[in-house]
Amino acid sequence: MTFSPPERNEQDWSWDLDQVVTELHQARRRWRAKHQRSAASGEREFPSRDALRAIVRDLCGVLFPMRLGPVELRQQDEDYYVGYTLNQALNALLRQLQLELGLVRPRNDAAGIAAQAREIAGRFAAALPGLRALIDTDIEAAYRGDPAARSVDEVLLCYPGIHAIILHRLAHQLYRLDAPLLARIVAEIAHTETGVDIHPGARIGSDFFIDHGTGVVIGETAVIGQRVRLYQAVTLGAKRFDHDDDGVLLKGNARHPIVEDDVVIYAGATILGRITIGQGSVIGGNVWLTRSVPPGSQITQANADTRSGVPA
Amino acid sequence: MTFSPPERNEQDWSWDLDQVVTELHQARRRWRAKHQRSAASGEREFPSRDALRAIVRDLCGVLFPMRLGPVELRQQDEDYYVGYTLNQALNALLRQLQLELGLVRPRNDAAGIAAQAREIAGRFAAALPGLRALIDTDIEAAYRGDPAARSVDEVLLCYPGIHAIILHRLAHQLYRLDAPLLARIVAEIAHTETGVDIHPGARIGSDFFIDHGTGVVIGETAVIGQRVRLYQAVTLGAKRFDHDDDGVLLKGNARHPIVEDDVVIYAGATILGRITIGQGSVIGGNVWLTRSVPPGSQITQANADTRSGVPA
Amino acid sequence: MTFSPPERNEQDWSWDLDQVVTELHQARRRWRAKHQRSAASGEREFPSRDALRAIVRDLCGVLFPMRLGPVELRQQDEDYYVGYTLNQALNALLRQLQLELGLVRPRNDAAGIAAQAREIAGRFAAALPGLRALIDTDIEAAYRGDPAARSVDEVLLCYPGIHAIILHRLAHQLYRLDAPLLARIVAEIAHTETGVDIHPGARIGSDFFIDHGTGVVIGETAVIGQRVRLYQAVTLGAKRFDHDDDGVLLKGNARHPIVEDDVVIYAGATILGRITIGQGSVIGGNVWLTRSVPPGSQITQANADTRSGVPA
Amino acid sequence: MTFSPPERNEQDWSWDLDQVVTELHQARRRWRAKHQRSAASGEREFPSRDALRAIVRDLCGVLFPMRLGPVELRQQDEDYYVGYTLNQALNALLRQLQLELGLVRPRNDAAGIAAQAREIAGRFAAALPGLRALIDTDIEAAYRGDPAARSVDEVLLCYPGIHAIILHRLAHQLYRLDAPLLARIVAEIAHTETGVDIHPGARIGSDFFIDHGTGVVIGETAVIGQRVRLYQAVTLGAKRFDHDDDGVLLKGNARHPIVEDDVVIYAGATILGRITIGQGSVIGGNVWLTRSVPPGSQITQANADTRSGVPA
Amino acid sequence: MTFSPPERNEQDWSWDLDQVVTELHQARRRWRAKHQRSAASGEREFPSRDALRAIVRDLCGVLFPMRLGPVELRQQDEDYYVGYTLNQALNALLRQLQLELGLVRPRNDAAGIAAQAREIAGRFAAALPGLRALIDTDIEAAYRGDPAARSVDEVLLCYPGIHAIILHRLAHQLYRLDAPLLARIVAEIAHTETGVDIHPGARIGSDFFIDHGTGVVIGETAVIGQRVRLYQAVTLGAKRFDHDDDGVLLKGNARHPIVEDDVVIYAGATILGRITIGQGSVIGGNVWLTRSVPPGSQITQANADTRSGVPA
Amino acid sequence: MTFSPPERNEQDWSWDLDQVVTELHQARRRWRAKHQRSAASGEREFPSRDALRAIVRDLCGVLFPMRLGPVELRQQDEDYYVGYTLNQALNALLRQLQLELGLVRPRNDAAGIAAQAREIAGRFAAALPGLRALIDTDIEAAYRGDPAARSVDEVLLCYPGIHAIILHRLAHQLYRLDAPLLARIVAEIAHTETGVDIHPGARIGSDFFIDHGTGVVIGETAVIGQRVRLYQAVTLGAKRFDHDDDGVLLKGNARHPIVEDDVVIYAGATILGRITIGQGSVIGGNVWLTRSVPPGSQITQANADTRSGVPA
Repeated sequence: MTFSPPERNEQDWSWDLDQVVTELHQARRRWRAKHQRSAASGEREFPSRDALRAIVRDLCGVLFPMRLGPVELRQQDEDYYVGYTLNQALNALLRQLQLELGLVRPRNDAAGIAAQAREIAGRFAAALPGLRALIDTDIEAAYRGDPAARSVDEVLLCYPGIHAIILHRLAHQLYRLDAPLLARIVAEIAHTETGVDIHPGARIGSDFFIDHGTGVVIGETAVIGQRVRLYQAVTLGAKRFDHDDDGVLLKGNARHPIVEDDVVIYAGATILGRITIGQGSVIGGNVWLTRSVPPGSQITQANADTRSGVPA
Repeated sequence: MTFSPPERNEQDWSWDLDQVVTELHQARRRWRAKHQRSAASGEREFPSRDALRAIVRDLCGVLFPMRLGPVELRQQDEDYYVGYTLNQALNALLRQLQLELGLVRPRNDAAGIAAQAREIAGRFAAALPGLRALIDTDIEAAYRGDPAARSVDEVLLCYPGIHAIILHRLAHQLYRLDAPLLARIVAEIAHTETGVDIHPGARIGSDFFIDHGTGVVIGETAVIGQRVRLYQAVTLGAKRFDHDDDGVLLKGNARHPIVEDDVVIYAGATILGRITIGQGSVIGGNVWLTRSVPPGSQITQANADTRSGVPA
Repeated sequence: MTFSPPERNEQDWSWDLDQVVTELHQARRRWRAKHQRSAASGEREFPSRDALRAIVRDLCGVLFPMRLGPVELRQQDEDYYVGYTLNQALNALLRQLQLELGLVRPRNDAAGIAAQAREIAGRFAAALPGLRALIDTDIEAAYRGDPAARSVDEVLLCYPGIHAIILHRLAHQLYRLDAPLLARIVAEIAHTETGVDIHPGARIGSDFFIDHGTGVVIGETAVIGQRVRLYQAVTLGAKRFDHDDDGVLLKGNARHPIVEDDVVIYAGATILGRITIGQGSVIGGNVWLTRSVPPGSQITQANADTRSGVPA
Repeated sequence: MTFSPPERNEQDWSWDLDQVVTELHQARRRWRAKHQRSAASGEREFPSRDALRAIVRDLCGVLFPMRLGPVELRQQDEDYYVGYTLNQALNALLRQLQLELGLVRPRNDAAGIAAQAREIAGRFAAALPGLRALIDTDIEAAYRGDPAARSVDEVLLCYPGIHAIILHRLAHQLYRLDAPLLARIVAEIAHTETGVDIHPGARIGSDFFIDHGTGVVIGETAVIGQRVRLYQAVTLGAKRFDHDDDGVLLKGNARHPIVEDDVVIYAGATILGRITIGQGSVIGGNVWLTRSVPPGSQITQANADTRSGVPA
Repeated sequence: MTFSPPERNEQDWSWDLDQVVTELHQARRRWRAKHQRSAASGEREFPSRDALRAIVRDLCGVLFPMRLGPVELRQQDEDYYVGYTLNQALNALLRQLQLELGLVRPRNDAAGIAAQAREIAGRFAAALPGLRALIDTDIEAAYRGDPAARSVDEVLLCYPGIHAIILHRLAHQLYRLDAPLLARIVAEIAHTETGVDIHPGARIGSDFFIDHGTGVVIGETAVIGQRVRLYQAVTLGAKRFDHDDDGVLLKGNARHPIVEDDVVIYAGATILGRITIGQGSVIGGNVWLTRSVPPGSQITQANADTRSGVPA
Repeated sequence: MTFSPPERNEQDWSWDLDQVVTELHQARRRWRAKHQRSAASGEREFPSRDALRAIVRDLCGVLFPMRLGPVELRQQDEDYYVGYTLNQALNALLRQLQLELGLVRPRNDAAGIAAQAREIAGRFAAALPGLRALIDTDIEAAYRGDPAARSVDEVLLCYPGIHAIILHRLAHQLYRLDAPLLARIVAEIAHTETGVDIHPGARIGSDFFIDHGTGVVIGETAVIGQRVRLYQAVTLGAKRFDHDDDGVLLKGNARHPIVEDDVVIYAGATILGRITIGQGSVIGGNVWLTRSVPPGSQITQANADTRSGVPA
């Protein structure tokens, strides 16, 4: 941080600050010229990951005040805490919504931006009680699905899969309300904290459980039914080579799997493309699957274990 | 965060705060009714992940004061720092222990809770010097096992596998002292920071090394011998389908592998069930293994590389 | 944190602080004796992960002031912000460089340490504009390569692969300037935040894109060309068994793959050893590859999907 | 904070830490022996000035949410904020009350301490609406009494005399509820921030105004009526020499002035002893007064100005 | 902060939160009704003392970067620091200006408020170099005037009188630019930190020095020439009784002293009313003065010391 | 802090940042030219008030660990806390000492500066136990001298006079060890927090008590005996007019009073010049005294009270 006096001579500081600042300025100018960023658009602010992290943390407390809220809370104070914290979180969200909308709408339509942001925030707020009920089913599913789980509270406090699904359900709500950038930032907050990478566009039914979670990837157009259970490193991805003949990737079309109710997918399974995993199927660990399977399928790696060598 | 004056009219605020607060209140009431949470039990506090993160950070400094403690520390001051910081950490741990015990013991037995918490904290403290010696063997193993390692200090400062094993050894101690919830929270702190998911119940011998680490999963009843080395994405898991005929998962029985001394398991290997990997075995990358192998086995994927296609 | 008065009797505190402090002291003494740490060398400070995290955060703002810098920044203020923040970051880096150099150079050569630290910091600063231009190509590559990407700005703000490559390019610069410990710490910061583990020694060309990213491992001597695209859980690692007959691992030699221009490697592929993936090749998901392939190869898992079982 | 490497030799550190620590230990032991502090009583915690500062800050927001509370608050959210913040403040106050009561009650009566603390906190809470109404009269008095005041809001936001009286009214409530130590700490917080030193025992009527305030001292047994106005450096003190013939100060008896309704006391006036300033009196600047004056008195310095010299 | 489990029964919490919240709500409603605060006006935000404290701190660094700015600053980086920090401070000031203007202008004239705020901020910025030069004269005056001063730098770093005059000159600028509420808040920040209470309206010439400072009060319409020196507890106040026959204080008229160039006023002197202290006069300690004195006057307390008693 | 989108047009920002930065640059250049500040000397860092505030806070905890240290401390942990905190404080002090010495010694004598700083810090540390014993006498004197004091602990926790004397005794030690600038900064910290302004050069005996304290000023060369008691607004100052015929103030000579043992000085008394207040004297409130008085004197204002007017 600091240095002792004798090292502080003029010639000590070998970096040429002005030169580096100038060259960085030129690098920005080249980028802006290339991407048609006028000074005006370049001035726009972007939503803030730090702000969204705080919002999400507050919303977790709002949804589960006694378990994820502040330590001293008692039941008789819950509503005060919930009301005050929710309002703070919505105000902060409103600001972030304005920033996102400001990137895609005409700059001079400030009133329109503000009105749309308020509408989104209001509808987001109205959806929260439903999300709470939905996440309650996820918690119960995790408790039922893990032999190591001791209580529903331990599940809520400790399980990365639960944290990931809470944040996904918030992110998905933002995605549906036309705030895809905020949604994506929330999804990446979950990804950093849990290693679970669920695109906010993915539609996921109730009673969803991911165990361990690290390396799970679920794509934008995936559809997952009720009572589905996944383990670590499962991929529900797009098939490779989904770009056209000119080498341009195709965008926006449905390209990720449909997983029907009551499916279990074990660790490391890779399921690619717009295929359907029929209801009640069980997909084994490390299975590579690019075609639909009917309800009740039990897919396993061929010859697992038999490929092993023998001890010397 | 804030907005300019003209947007602040009554009608601006489109969310109905009272309505959302009421509905969230009802959602909590439904959950509590379903899970038989009386007001009394609902008032109980839960241990805090933030508190445990601070405790763990302090304990890392206590165990390795010159390398993980505060910057200005010198050897002549070490004991003062260690004594003061350890005492702070133990006081904070004592509080968290009371919270965990308060969840499982009768509420009105405050004296019993306090006494048990003190006993656990005292025994935990007494175990620390032994843990330090054990972790020293892990550091030496990492240095021996990684060609890129330049010094034992670099290993301690940088390697996620070392961070994960330090936290596991602390968590396992808590697990053995009947504080499984705190243990689990510590394990999840490590999981978030390193991508290594070791259940605190796993028993791991000296000289243990995990390289890279992301995606490693080690289950609750796994037993690992001395001088074992793992790479990223190795799973020591339970076999699938371990629930009974009624669909209820079996809990508590030994269901994860035993890995004997001097075993090496390469990246992506999946080893499932209560099997034994005999002493000195080498398990190749991506191997899928659900049966025991004798000492000295060298297990590799069958036909690796030969399944590849050829260039067009 | 605190406890109510009645629990505060002498006998409440069951830990023997002096005893634990003494035993921890002895454990340190044993380690230092074993590793020939004199008191003098034991006094040396180590670089700080927290300090580097702050430096890296500042440098991200310096490189991309409008998007990763402070919220209120406008184009007309950019240069002031960039100059001031860069200077702060370089001063802080200078301190960390002195700490790293102090570990490997004779302690009494303070002037030499200071001079070398300044030279490194100066050359690091001079490299930043070039790094900015290089990272711009990475951002464009990510935008081109992901059908879900809506804008180059979303890519910079949200994509963990972009965050990982920004930090890698900074870390690699430090690595090349003979600050391997700082480089490694920066790499591990990226690893913690993104699940992407790139050794700072890896040489990576322009237009590089990692999608999703969790579980990617790229080794120290890997060489990656231009326009390469990787997906999650790809390993570019060393072949196993690369220790000599005495069981000592071989260090420093080239042992990781060379990936030529325009290669795509899908999720979960494992590529090991000093082999070459020829230009324009496509390596399929979960492929295990330990031999070189010529340009234009398309390698896929043999019999993927055909090993599946059938539904009951 | 830190120093460059060359200065870090053994002999650099010229302080003998162990010696100083030992001597400080002995100094504490001497004090404790002299004041009969057993180890047990020495262990008691003392209330915390920092904790009370936070409590007082929260209470100011609770009393005046739109003006002293958080920036984004709106009228429709006020009650949520007030309820949540008040509850937090009362919980924190409860802890401080336990600490104060623990100093004066038998240590082993924890239940009694807790019960009394709760009763005090509850009665304190019940008094807050009345205090708000009382302080409203002070704000109106300040607005009426200062020609520079532009609005009642400016008075509340800016005037040190208002800040001092808010804190005094809180402190006096604590004093009346038998928490004199907490009361005194609150009074000293006001003293530090405003230079106004009002003993929490002083009884002060409505519509009270202190202008400027620095140096005002009001003693423990002072009684002040309604609509009284003071200026800076006014002392309402005890008469000197109020110790007995043995040189021991007399304690507890009424020894400070009674100031009746509608009195104005100008800057620097010193009023000492249990005298009465009759209703509606005006006491001039710098007046020294140690006898009662009847209602309607106008007391001024004799010969003010006439003692001045003339220019050379 | 927290309490042990046994005290957490329902009946423990003796405060009736809902009751107190309701009564506080009613108290606010009474106040608003009395002061004609509609819901709309009640929603207005007030400027923030904390925000202004941060702004003032930044401006001190901008004015004196090497001495009051950040520790590591060097001359070659000064302009970057000054530009960035100034811009931040002005942005923050702009927000506070909008809040003040929003209190006095029609709410629906947002554009007008914004434009006026920008104009004030711009003119404030333009005045800063002149203020720096003016404060330089104050520093030199302090150095000349105090026999204990060792250097001009010590004066700037340590002297409360210098801190008070820096803040006054900033506050006076705001006052002149029609931001009297912000000006007053800045003045009260200085008052709290130094005990010096200068109304921001006071006009003060160059080379001004206040020694010690505690208790100094300078009123709104005071006019002070060049090279004036004051000591602690000097009052330049309004004469008492300056309200009209109806008891309503007269507002806005010139009511504080004019102090001409080169006057010295010793500690405790009280000078009241719109009188003139002629150039070069010396006013003795504790003098009470309510009439003008010609240039060159030397005013002392009559008979100082001679009123003393004799030892018993 | 932030503003809504519509206000963000180019022309919104009316300040000319570059212009103001340039003019501030010129103002600095003029000052440096006038005061012969070369670039080299201009680079020197100054000691930091924030750093000293933290040091002083730590030292208060070191001196009185159970009462001014951290909340959870117990007697059995005191020495660990004291040793660790003292060492931290001394390291931080060492850095500040180097900065002060760097201002007065040749810049290129870094080794000499470091050695002198270490010697001062070491001697300062060695003096702490003696200071603790001395301050204990002050606490006892305050308890004896104030009829409102309930315990010695209340005195230490609450009394501003005690806080001021603790900081003075620390500052005076620095002053005696030739660190007058640090000493002065510490004195000003006390001044800000208590309104008591004691020059660090003042020599003060044991059992010293200041009640209330606001406005007390004690000059650099004052000498105060044992068991002396002061009240608020007492000045022990230099006589006015102590500059020579050329108008240059005389510096460094003894110019403040000598107050012998057992003297009491009541509020507002002004005692000026190198006079002696004989042992056991009592100086009344508001007395103005510029001549020595023999032991046992009782000095009061002549005709106090008799100058009063009568009620109309």
